[in-house]
Amino acid sequence: MTLVEIKRLLIGEPFPTSREIHERLDKVRALAVFASDPISSNAYATEAIMSVLIALGSGGLAMTLPVGMGVAGLILLVIFSYIQTILHYPDGGGAYTVAKDNLGTMASLLAAAALLTDYILTVSVSISAGVRAVTSAVPAAFEYRVWIALVAIVLITWVNLRGVRDSGTIFAIPTYAFVGGVLLVIVIGLARLNSLAGLPTSAPVVPASDHGASLAGFAYVWLLLRAFAGGCTALTGIEAISNGVQAFKPPESKNAAATMVAMGVMAMSLFVGITFLSTHLRLAPQEAESILSQLTRQVTSGGLLYYWVQFFTAMILFLAANTGYQDFPRLSSFLARDNFLPRWLQNRGDRLVYSSGIMVLAIISSLIVIIFQADEIAMLPLYALGVMLSFSISQSGMFRLMGRIRHLKKGESLKTQVTEIHYEANAKWKQATNALGAGVTFLVFIILVLTKFMEGAWVVALLVPVMVTTFYGVHRHYDRVAEALTTRGMTMDDISEVADVVVIPIADVHRGTVLAIEFAKRISSDVRALCVTTSAQMDDRLLRRWNRFPEITADVQLIRIEYDYRDVLSPVVDYIEQLNEVEFPDKLTTVVVPEFIPEHRFANFLHNQTANRLRWRLREHKDIVIIDVPFHIDSRL
Amino acid sequence: MTLVEIKRLLIGEPFPTSREIHERLDKVRALAVFASDPISSNAYATEAIMSVLIALGSGGLAMTLPVGMGVAGLILLVIFSYIQTILHYPDGGGAYTVAKDNLGTMASLLAAAALLTDYILTVSVSISAGVRAVTSAVPAAFEYRVWIALVAIVLITWVNLRGVRDSGTIFAIPTYAFVGGVLLVIVIGLARLNSLAGLPTSAPVVPASDHGASLAGFAYVWLLLRAFAGGCTALTGIEAISNGVQAFKPPESKNAAATMVAMGVMAMSLFVGITFLSTHLRLAPQEAESILSQLTRQVTSGGLLYYWVQFFTAMILFLAANTGYQDFPRLSSFLARDNFLPRWLQNRGDRLVYSSGIMVLAIISSLIVIIFQADEIAMLPLYALGVMLSFSISQSGMFRLMGRIRHLKKGESLKTQVTEIHYEANAKWKQATNALGAGVTFLVFIILVLTKFMEGAWVVALLVPVMVTTFYGVHRHYDRVAEALTTRGMTMDDISEVADVVVIPIADVHRGTVLAIEFAKRISSDVRALCVTTSAQMDDRLLRRWNRFPEITADVQLIRIEYDYRDVLSPVVDYIEQLNEVEFPDKLTTVVVPEFIPEHRFANFLHNQTANRLRWRLREHKDIVIIDVPFHIDSRL
Repeated sequence: MTLVEIKRLLIGEPFPTSREIHERLDKVRALAVFASDPISSNAYATEAIMSVLIALGSGGLAMTLPVGMGVAGLILLVIFSYIQTILHYPDGGGAYTVAKDNLGTMASLLAAAALLTDYILTVSVSISAGVRAVTSAVPAAFEYRVWIALVAIVLITWVNLRGVRDSGTIFAIPTYAFVGGVLLVIVIGLARLNSLAGLPTSAPVVPASDHGASLAGFAYVWLLLRAFAGGCTALTGIEAISNGVQAFKPPESKNAAATMVAMGVMAMSLFVGITFLSTHLRLAPQEAESILSQLTRQVTSGGLLYYWVQFFTAMILFLAANTGYQDFPRLSSFLARDNFLPRWLQNRGDRLVYSSGIMVLAIISSLIVIIFQADEIAMLPLYALGVMLSFSISQSGMFRLMGRIRHLKKGESLKTQVTEIHYEANAKWKQATNALGAGVTFLVFIILVLTKFMEGAWVVALLVPVMVTTFYGVHRHYDRVAEALTTRGMTMDDISEVADVVVIPIADVHRGTVLAIEFAKRISSDVRALCVTTSAQMDDRLLRRWNRFPEITADVQLIRIEYDYRDVLSPVVDYIEQLNEVEFPDKLTTVVVPEFIPEHRFANFLHNQTANRLRWRLREHKDIVIIDVPFHIDSRL
Repeated sequence: MTLVEIKRLLIGEPFPTSREIHERLDKVRALAVFASDPISSNAYATEAIMSVLIALGSGGLAMTLPVGMGVAGLILLVIFSYIQTILHYPDGGGAYTVAKDNLGTMASLLAAAALLTDYILTVSVSISAGVRAVTSAVPAAFEYRVWIALVAIVLITWVNLRGVRDSGTIFAIPTYAFVGGVLLVIVIGLARLNSLAGLPTSAPVVPASDHGASLAGFAYVWLLLRAFAGGCTALTGIEAISNGVQAFKPPESKNAAATMVAMGVMAMSLFVGITFLSTHLRLAPQEAESILSQLTRQVTSGGLLYYWVQFFTAMILFLAANTGYQDFPRLSSFLARDNFLPRWLQNRGDRLVYSSGIMVLAIISSLIVIIFQADEIAMLPLYALGVMLSFSISQSGMFRLMGRIRHLKKGESLKTQVTEIHYEANAKWKQATNALGAGVTFLVFIILVLTKFMEGAWVVALLVPVMVTTFYGVHRHYDRVAEALTTRGMTMDDISEVADVVVIPIADVHRGTVLAIEFAKRISSDVRALCVTTSAQMDDRLLRRWNRFPEITADVQLIRIEYDYRDVLSPVVDYIEQLNEVEFPDKLTTVVVPEFIPEHRFANFLHNQTANRLRWRLREHKDIVIIDVPFHIDSRL
């Protein structure tokens, strides 16, 4: 089985480029692919609010619903803003494109760096959370958690390399099963609310902590803000669709916007429903059991539906990683297209996905899993910061765009760098919404930075500027390359002449060398065979064999260099350098390398890699053309 | 600081080949380099006998001295045999050369495989034993034992890469300090024997084990044989000098033989002295303290000399690894010279040592240390087998050689394959000694296999035949290569003609491509630029740029291939194959690859490695000459 056959088996037959349009996602699959991250946040967002408020004692939990409604309002704002983004930037690119078009390169790179960091962490955190669900069920597996996480990354990478549609199909089931299950729990809960609320709750009455009890004024507001910031984890992943507009079947932006609305409705309903029921059933965060599990147990009395929800919670946490696999490769490809990342990140693989980006993501997130030993709790302080920063930048960008639209008259339109804008009604109100959204998300960002800085957020604060600097460095490199390669203004004088000389480094006279000499004689009248001799015997043998073929060697100059060291490449390189710089300055010098190639690749191991090493050393020098004349031998081990 | 400068700093300035003779070892250094392994065996050989005999109870230990004398006798036999080997095979090579010259290839390869296995294990076992000495002193270091062992391997590798004389100087101190210390203990012990023997011993009286008590007849003999086999660990490393005759200053074989005698006298004196005193002082093996430590403590009453001996015991155990570093690279180089191992194992590095062999040894022994987690007790069953087998083969070979010498008349001489033999007096007696030595060492080998097979000796039993098969495979490969390369019987018709066609795969028209086309036009009248276009825009742009330089592109055929997949190399390779096999069969086809080379190597990362990948794919095909036309750009990141 060849390597190519193995690849075919794993990845599937390659798709023609023209098939790209068929590989696009319909709305049902797209929702599953893009929504697993934001929807899975419902497994813990309500709890994140409560675990801050519990500092005020059980009584403080009464604030959960108001804070939750605030978060819900923010979700609405953000979704509204991103729908605008999708409609105005139908080629996708989300925060990066919006910022590029409205706020300039620096802002766009800042947003991109923040998002890329977050996408990598999405994979590491989600996989680790999924592994925690597994090891909670099977404690003996805890010792192997890093291995389990790495296997999960390999599997999810594999599915994504098979193509977007394939992964959409595979991921649809757990997403819809989770949403359906939790919605059913909410409906039953609301229907039975009166009878349930009367029941005694299992949650213990917690007194306010010493610190919490004495809170007043600013401290109280700060606690509410922290609870609010905690609840904002429900927002992670919401922006995914705006990046991936081009993954939808046409009409792309319409389908994407519709999917965004569906996702928003689902995420909001789940979040509001869970938060409402949790407060009315007077649930409180507990070490051993999550809020969602408490809620489901109480509503369903622990029946089949309870296990359904629990199972698919674990599944969707695993699959939330997939959002990273959708977003990271696509955003990297945008940056690569704009020359801010290596260009090969734009290449689509056999199945029309950004294979290189997928592999890069898999490698980096695996490293993070290894460094943090699959402990997602330790990674969380690094997480969610980036998303908030990009939300804020994105909404600021939309604020600018709406400002420009406001100045258009009815029927007028205008081309920006990236897109075309037309007159819109209500642009003023839309702009106000964006201003509010930008302000609130920026506030949440600041709260997150302040509260999590010492726990690890400083890593992100350090990483993002480093990434932005790298982006600029890569861009400068490509600029210089383009300048050097351009044919504009080029004249024939700019092309180096070829010197009429060919050097052939040889170690011995054999069929391979003879072939190389014959080739050299075809292309030059001044052929020089160069041999470094390290002993008198070697010198004798060489001369004897050389003189055996006068018809071949007659017109060829044999240059023997006696050398008392074993590093025979150095005198060869020195001779060629001298030739290139002194004897034929400013001309191309040609070196013919007789290369011995065994039929079996493994047999390379049995030979000095002199030809390869010589090529590597000459590669550094300008104006040297290297000709490999191969001599193949059928010599299987 | 460049890589070359770092190498110079670590390894030192390169030596000229002609300096080799100055790098040879004088007898004092040679003894230190070659003797650390056999002399260090005295730290445990006596104990190895006692720990078997203790099955008979304290009373059984009385057999220690007789068994020890038997071992001492065997040491004498083996040393005598190896002195003969050194004198008859002054070019070195030990068991391998003797077997090759007298018993045939198979026996020589068997001996070589057994020895190479043992040399690798010498390093792993000695380093691990040294680490155990360290972690006994500092128990907190136990967790890091594998790392400590790997650091020790790196250090010893480094010292050996610096050259033979350097390592000889470094290793002389601990070897002589150990020998001097133990000899002093023995002398003091003998002088005070009467007063000491009267003292009550700390050793508890051990009753015979149930098993041991009932021993009689064959079972008793078997136990004695096992004790004898245990004591034979004192023999490991004795053969080292016979391999390394060429490491000595001239007259090589005379110096080597003298060193061998000195080593034998030292090893024998230590072994007999320790065994004699241990039995007379009625010492018994104890879990917590070695026999040597018990002996030293009792003789010196725990003074300075005690600590001296303890410290240098640990040191010499570490350094015993160095014997492996002397022997493995040298024996591999013999095998490589005879084409049984990759030829590059013959290459001497900057400091005239077999650097490649040293690196291979370092890598394999590190892997073994990692696999066995630096637990030398677990490795021991694999160890010492190989040495015994090679002793037996070597003495059988010397038996044959002496047989041939016996048939020579006075003044006659005869050339064998490898050496020259002359008439010798007493050849008959020498031959009888070899027969005895071969028989006894083979018996010990069988005992070791039988007693250690299940504990791990099966690994060696499996590995040695695999290695021998590999040696033959490598040899066949080189035979075929030599046959294919030879110019004997070659006629001009055997040299492939060069087809008058040059293909240039291009992705775009830029300065690099234009340079490549100019080069191609110089060497052929039929130049074809080959471009795979994956979209209509790409096609348009290519044509536009192509037509911009009529003076360059006029005589060149532009071949555009529309392709609906992203794997653009495949159609290029297909086209070239077709050209090579159908249009110009049996001729050399030339491919010019325009290669873009950024000045900074790291920037390669930012470019598709298309040129490299193309070269790799074309390399598989016969009759294709590849020309790299480089285009250098000063584009530091």
